[in-house]
Amino acid sequence: MCENEQEVWSNRPIGVFDSGVGGLTVAREIMRQLPNERIVYFGDTARVPYGNKSRETIVKFSRQIVRFLQTQKVKAIVVACNSASAYALEVLEQEVDIPIIGVIKSGARTAIQVTRNGKIGVIATEATIGSGIYKRYIQENNAEATVLGKACPLFVPLVEEGLWEDPVTDEIAKRYLTELIDVGIDTLILGCTHYPMIRSTVGRIMGSDVTLVNPAYETAHELKRLLQETGLESSHRPGLGTELYRFFVSDAADKFQKFANSILTYGILSAKVINIEAY
Amino acid sequence: MCENEQEVWSNRPIGVFDSGVGGLTVAREIMRQLPNERIVYFGDTARVPYGNKSRETIVKFSRQIVRFLQTQKVKAIVVACNSASAYALEVLEQEVDIPIIGVIKSGARTAIQVTRNGKIGVIATEATIGSGIYKRYIQENNAEATVLGKACPLFVPLVEEGLWEDPVTDEIAKRYLTELIDVGIDTLILGCTHYPMIRSTVGRIMGSDVTLVNPAYETAHELKRLLQETGLESSHRPGLGTELYRFFVSDAADKFQKFANSILTYGILSAKVINIEAY
Repeated sequence: MCENEQEVWSNRPIGVFDSGVGGLTVAREIMRQLPNERIVYFGDTARVPYGNKSRETIVKFSRQIVRFLQTQKVKAIVVACNSASAYALEVLEQEVDIPIIGVIKSGARTAIQVTRNGKIGVIATEATIGSGIYKRYIQENNAEATVLGKACPLFVPLVEEGLWEDPVTDEIAKRYLTELIDVGIDTLILGCTHYPMIRSTVGRIMGSDVTLVNPAYETAHELKRLLQETGLESSHRPGLGTELYRFFVSDAADKFQKFANSILTYGILSAKVINIEAY
Repeated sequence: MCENEQEVWSNRPIGVFDSGVGGLTVAREIMRQLPNERIVYFGDTARVPYGNKSRETIVKFSRQIVRFLQTQKVKAIVVACNSASAYALEVLEQEVDIPIIGVIKSGARTAIQVTRNGKIGVIATEATIGSGIYKRYIQENNAEATVLGKACPLFVPLVEEGLWEDPVTDEIAKRYLTELIDVGIDTLILGCTHYPMIRSTVGRIMGSDVTLVNPAYETAHELKRLLQETGLESSHRPGLGTELYRFFVSDAADKFQKFANSILTYGILSAKVINIEAY
């Protein structure tokens, strides 16, 4: 690649996708840590959630989304969905010729660094827990570690219903988390992009001795390193008149915008609906 | 149609579809009230739920499912999903040349018959409530009726998590139902196919003066009348060796079977996964 080509490439946006709105917590971290980067976000709101679906279906949906993002000339892709990272990332890595990262490896790596007693908990959707991928990544790097996964299917609906601080969310969280407390974990990975929104509830129940790991933060950090290593980092903030962030969804743009504006400090202008099944 | 053709037609199965497992409560009623009828059930488990999706998406998904059911040579179709009945039924009626019914009209009709004070409540998904269709149907037939709709987005995840009798479900139900109690409704339509599973919780909170209407029961009853009127009723129970009930899903057949077996007295043998997007 000659110098001009390199510059054109580095000015391209980052593609970020999720099954819906949850991945916006990852997009938010990328906005914070990489303010020069443009982002094209896709939320699969017509087929949300992925967390209770099978590997085959998640791989199929993820492939369609990657094909769409490639039409948007992205320079790298962030799979900002744990369920898709768990089931589809390894397949996508083989098929795509631009850098692609998920949210799981970086969260697992951080958990290994911060644990003191080697007992790590993971809370996530049924799909992510069922894949066993956090356990595999962690134990590949630290064979001594004990990893306890717990599926928490009600957390996503509770977050989407706005019950971020609520006695009902407290009660459900206590039920889900008790066995992790009993085992004596000292590190807990928030293995679903919705969970940072109920971080304080989870933190209160787990107690101050347990470190919470937010893969959104770690993933943005890994993306930064990756762009630097590959020379794909954007060297300057795009000029006035360039649209910094673009949002696409497969359904219900209004609802997406409303939720997005409650998460992002940057108010999104609009989200465009596309027919994802056509990709 | 000559007599032989009529007999061939009347031996065809009923197509029943839903976004997932909820419609099985309707299938169960059809099995009870119409034991001679064969059923082909489709649950769109790859794209479940519909209740938080837009009209366009629900119409598109419903059209694909109807095309699939037609390949199964069904003689009539039951839209066993309130969200799809709310948004897609009127479109489908125009496009399909076999009888097609939804779950909403029959529930609305029954509510009009049983109310004494003319105050009718409807609990359902956001899509169904947002469509305003129960209100429209009821007021077309009884302009004096007051109809109060309440979206209950957490009921479906609570049912699917198995919390049919649980203090958390009680608490959430109280929050959703309080405004219906305050208005003084005497009739409440369970406007989502999952809700019959928490019928006793809802009934306890509403009190014994409020009549609960279960559209699943009413729909099976309406189907029976329709088949009799059109001469499409199956005259005898299919013989040994004929598969009475067949189940198709778009994803996760194992999970579907598990849930189905908790609802149906008839143990389902298997569910087959099909690619619904291809229809």
